[in-house]
Amino acid sequence: MTTTRSADVLENALDAVARAARPTARSTAATRADWLRNIADSLDRASAELISIARAETNLTEVRLANELRRTTFQARLFADRLSTGSFSGAFIDPADADWPMGARPDLRRTFIPIGPVLVFTASNFPFAFGVAGGDMVSALTAGCPVLIKAHPGHPDLSRATYRVVTDALADAGAPEGVFGMIEGEDNGRAAVLDPRIRAVGFTGSTIGGRALFDVAMSRPDPIPFYAEMGSTNPVVITPRSWATRRAEIADGFAASLTASAGQMCTKPGVVFLPDVQGFLDQLPSLSAAPMLNDHILDGFHRTTSKMATQAAIALGELSARDAAPILFRTSIAEVQARPDLLDLEMFGPAALLVEYTHLDQVVDVIDQLPGQLTASVHGGDQPDPREAELVARLAEHAGRILWNDWPTGLSVTDAQQHGGPYPATTAPLSTSVGTQSVWRFLRPVTFQNMPDEALPEGLRRNLNSPSSAQEHA
Amino acid sequence: MTTTRSADVLENALDAVARAARPTARSTAATRADWLRNIADSLDRASAELISIARAETNLTEVRLANELRRTTFQARLFADRLSTGSFSGAFIDPADADWPMGARPDLRRTFIPIGPVLVFTASNFPFAFGVAGGDMVSALTAGCPVLIKAHPGHPDLSRATYRVVTDALADAGAPEGVFGMIEGEDNGRAAVLDPRIRAVGFTGSTIGGRALFDVAMSRPDPIPFYAEMGSTNPVVITPRSWATRRAEIADGFAASLTASAGQMCTKPGVVFLPDVQGFLDQLPSLSAAPMLNDHILDGFHRTTSKMATQAAIALGELSARDAAPILFRTSIAEVQARPDLLDLEMFGPAALLVEYTHLDQVVDVIDQLPGQLTASVHGGDQPDPREAELVARLAEHAGRILWNDWPTGLSVTDAQQHGGPYPATTAPLSTSVGTQSVWRFLRPVTFQNMPDEALPEGLRRNLNSPSSAQEHA
Repeated sequence: MTTTRSADVLENALDAVARAARPTARSTAATRADWLRNIADSLDRASAELISIARAETNLTEVRLANELRRTTFQARLFADRLSTGSFSGAFIDPADADWPMGARPDLRRTFIPIGPVLVFTASNFPFAFGVAGGDMVSALTAGCPVLIKAHPGHPDLSRATYRVVTDALADAGAPEGVFGMIEGEDNGRAAVLDPRIRAVGFTGSTIGGRALFDVAMSRPDPIPFYAEMGSTNPVVITPRSWATRRAEIADGFAASLTASAGQMCTKPGVVFLPDVQGFLDQLPSLSAAPMLNDHILDGFHRTTSKMATQAAIALGELSARDAAPILFRTSIAEVQARPDLLDLEMFGPAALLVEYTHLDQVVDVIDQLPGQLTASVHGGDQPDPREAELVARLAEHAGRILWNDWPTGLSVTDAQQHGGPYPATTAPLSTSVGTQSVWRFLRPVTFQNMPDEALPEGLRRNLNSPSSAQEHA
Repeated sequence: MTTTRSADVLENALDAVARAARPTARSTAATRADWLRNIADSLDRASAELISIARAETNLTEVRLANELRRTTFQARLFADRLSTGSFSGAFIDPADADWPMGARPDLRRTFIPIGPVLVFTASNFPFAFGVAGGDMVSALTAGCPVLIKAHPGHPDLSRATYRVVTDALADAGAPEGVFGMIEGEDNGRAAVLDPRIRAVGFTGSTIGGRALFDVAMSRPDPIPFYAEMGSTNPVVITPRSWATRRAEIADGFAASLTASAGQMCTKPGVVFLPDVQGFLDQLPSLSAAPMLNDHILDGFHRTTSKMATQAAIALGELSARDAAPILFRTSIAEVQARPDLLDLEMFGPAALLVEYTHLDQVVDVIDQLPGQLTASVHGGDQPDPREAELVARLAEHAGRILWNDWPTGLSVTDAQQHGGPYPATTAPLSTSVGTQSVWRFLRPVTFQNMPDEALPEGLRRNLNSPSSAQEHA
């Protein structure tokens, strides 16, 4: 009986987003901008209630949650602003040309249309910013796609409360019925990935979970784009020049980045290459334990740190039974050269591997073994010297974001942001899941040939009332 | 012994492109433009020899092959021109902003870097334009990626001759050693898809072959982008308004498009919806048989047309033993509504399914059942009336290119071109395999945070000698 009900809920949810696909796709950019602004305003009005529910379900502090909700509503408004100014048109217009060198060309006009209903698996560690009204949801809605949320089991009450706020805001703004839905339960999530009505998937979470669902999506009779943002150890290189001049600053910066939100960030610095581990430890401020999101996550932290401890690395610090006590591991560059898999073990929580090197060239050599990363950072001199510049170039071959004299946590939502990277950082290395460029994940190019204005989408027509943002080639 | 040699050849080829990856990535856009122009010039100089080899291996006519080679060299030069003018920078610059509403933002600069060595499976039906020096190869090289060609067994001599011309041209232009390689044999192709040194794959061919290799790529420990351009039946709708006024023009246009290159085009019109099949047949000019590329392809044509004949459709014309005699099948809209799989059977060669309808609304209903298509065409009045405009909008939900009063064969290479579509037309619906935008398949975004000029890629630096094409946001 329960199974039947759950199947009905899933079927209704899939049917609703499928029915909403066409009206959502045909809404104007200005209209969708209004939806997004209404969502942001409604979340702001409900902030006290939502933060209170989130506190009860996640162990995150009120300050942290308030900041995260502010980021979430800012994000919705930023995307709305970019929609209003035509940022996601991407149009190219090639007028007919009888003298085109390979032979006369017809009139060709290229634009982007929404890919269709998008399924979004939300994350545990950012209940707002990567949650029901998070980045994947607003980028899909910006693109003109209905969204079906798979709620994270770590905060079910918050998911339901946020869902109600967003649904009411969309209805209030006149959005199509069914444009936004939510399902719960692992089986339902998996079934939705396989459903032909779902046209793309966004996922934020673990590499194991992301890969399993990626495999399901690729096994479809018609595979679909699957955007998973997964694991990363976010290597940091402290060069001899930086260590010689900025010890305290580097140690303090690392401590803050390691323990922010109890290390439960996909951008936490998990591997640090440095010339003097003991000096670094002497310089570190004391690191205090903090509660993790939930017991399941704490178990995972104990599991991965125990695994690291049984490997070549030497543990500095002790595991705590209840809270997550920061723990550091120490190894040598020679060990890592022999066992590059040590660079690949993500410990979700306040843990990191410190790798001592003698010559910077040893680090340059090891970088070629790095799996795909969301970020990589270099702490160097005021300006990069040639060896440090080479280090930056090598790291860029493996990561989506490269930082100079800065720490990877604290991800700003902007136009130039990139949050992604080669596998296993993501399953889609050519895309970003944060920043305005994340919208392109859900837009499909279509070219119209010899098409009269009467059947062209807005933005491609010859008789425009407003200036076109299309690139025109003579 | 042969196996060992083949394995050595493969290993050497993979090693060579892997070694070439960094120098190729670090070449300037102007340098790569020179490589491409040198390739085009060399192919032009070798045209007589290459066309002669191609004629012996493919049954294609000299005129057709000369046109195709002209398209191929034009394509290389067009990509070189776009490289020279900075078309593929895609840069965004967000200067640091202490007042950014979600919290102070750092300086963020986003650009694109080459994804790494690209494996290209060439096609049988376009031995030049989708061959060794074809679209996938020049787009990957434009992006800054070494290319490993898997030669098509349908024209081995032409592949080897073209490979020598291109390799000499690259060496002559000073390109890095190993930037371009070639392998042969199905097993080697499959092994290369699995090799960690290969970072992306381009494929042009059948849905069965493309899907099999796609599955291999997705099974890797680190799945990589796989761009397969595969099957399409390229539906054409003849509306009552167009049929009333342009019968002869439509029949002649269809006949030419159906039989161009003996129907061996991925854009051949394979399904035609029309209000009067008998009137259409009466209007058709006589269609003559022509040899196909090779016996393997002729067998496939006989197999798929026999399959269609045993299904609901009625055959008009007869199968020929040697050449490919054009053959048409006839069915009703009611039959297709009941059996939408008929719309999905690609017959590679001069064959098409004619579907008779009574009301245009019936066609609109059937469109929702269409699998993904490379193209879809509408023949209507001079200007679309509202029902015809609705037809265009519905077809755009299923295809990459939508044509008005035009035929899908004869694909121009331009900036606004789109050659792709939802599965099974491709495995990557957000990309194009033809036109300058195909380069983006091989470029990965990277953002630099707080990075001084000394370690920034060209185009992101603050002290620019030339005007920047980056979009800057205040």
